[in-house]
Amino acid sequence: MRRALELAQAATAHGDVPVGAVVFRSATGEVLGEGLNRREADNDPTAHAEVVAIRKAAAALGDWRLNDCTLAVTLEPCAMCAGAIVNARVGRVVFAAPDPKAGCTGSLMRLTEDPRLNHRVRPLGGLLASSSSEMLRAFFRARRG
Amino acid sequence: MRRALELAQAATAHGDVPVGAVVFRSATGEVLGEGLNRREADNDPTAHAEVVAIRKAAAALGDWRLNDCTLAVTLEPCAMCAGAIVNARVGRVVFAAPDPKAGCTGSLMRLTEDPRLNHRVRPLGGLLASSSSEMLRAFFRARRG
Repeated sequence: MRRALELAQAATAHGDVPVGAVVFRSATGEVLGEGLNRREADNDPTAHAEVVAIRKAAAALGDWRLNDCTLAVTLEPCAMCAGAIVNARVGRVVFAAPDPKAGCTGSLMRLTEDPRLNHRVRPLGGLLASSSSEMLRAFFRARRG
Repeated sequence: MRRALELAQAATAHGDVPVGAVVFRSATGEVLGEGLNRREADNDPTAHAEVVAIRKAAAALGDWRLNDCTLAVTLEPCAMCAGAIVNARVGRVVFAAPDPKAGCTGSLMRLTEDPRLNHRVRPLGGLLASSSSEMLRAFFRARRG
């Protein structure tokens, strides 16, 4: 999660909301993919940190199934990212700050725990949450200022 | 939607479930992005037809906001794709066949109409549904056979 926070900070260099993500092998910690929010940088509405990291990890593995992997992300996943977690069958998910406006793994709904979908994972939130929240607050404060 | 069905058929050439999508300007019909399911071809769990078409359309426009665009897709969007539709602020969505197992714009839930999210769109389903359903049935029949 510390690496994900570094990636989040880097996103602010191109005016993107600071969110970072890392996908690693759950058993060994080997990093397979990293991502940071590049929506503004790339004009890509799907370039959330989680999607970028998941795509890179799947490419590194040569397999779209990430059952043996953990995703660490600095902000609670949105609906798109929660759906990507289900589609990629990510084995474990940890996130830092909750997102009361768009978070779909605890705040607005619990998409990744829906018993009707063909993969389920219960994310663990709150890891280094205050560091992530403070980074987000500073970003929006600077943008308003 | 006829073009989306052609794209769907093309996905079967690389063993992918036949789903195709087109993003076009709602006012003029100008095509901005096309996509077909490439999960197996690219080992990319996020490479659903809708995500591919949305990314291409945003790149073509140089803007991640697709408010003035329509997405036509041959299968009801999953949670990831419904979330991508919200994130890209797609103005209109039409789909062909419903997806009772994973569809999140009518079958399992109505993600793109959630009043708590910052963009809402009510998809119109059923357009050329039987053509899409028959293509999907033929694909799974051949795969089992």
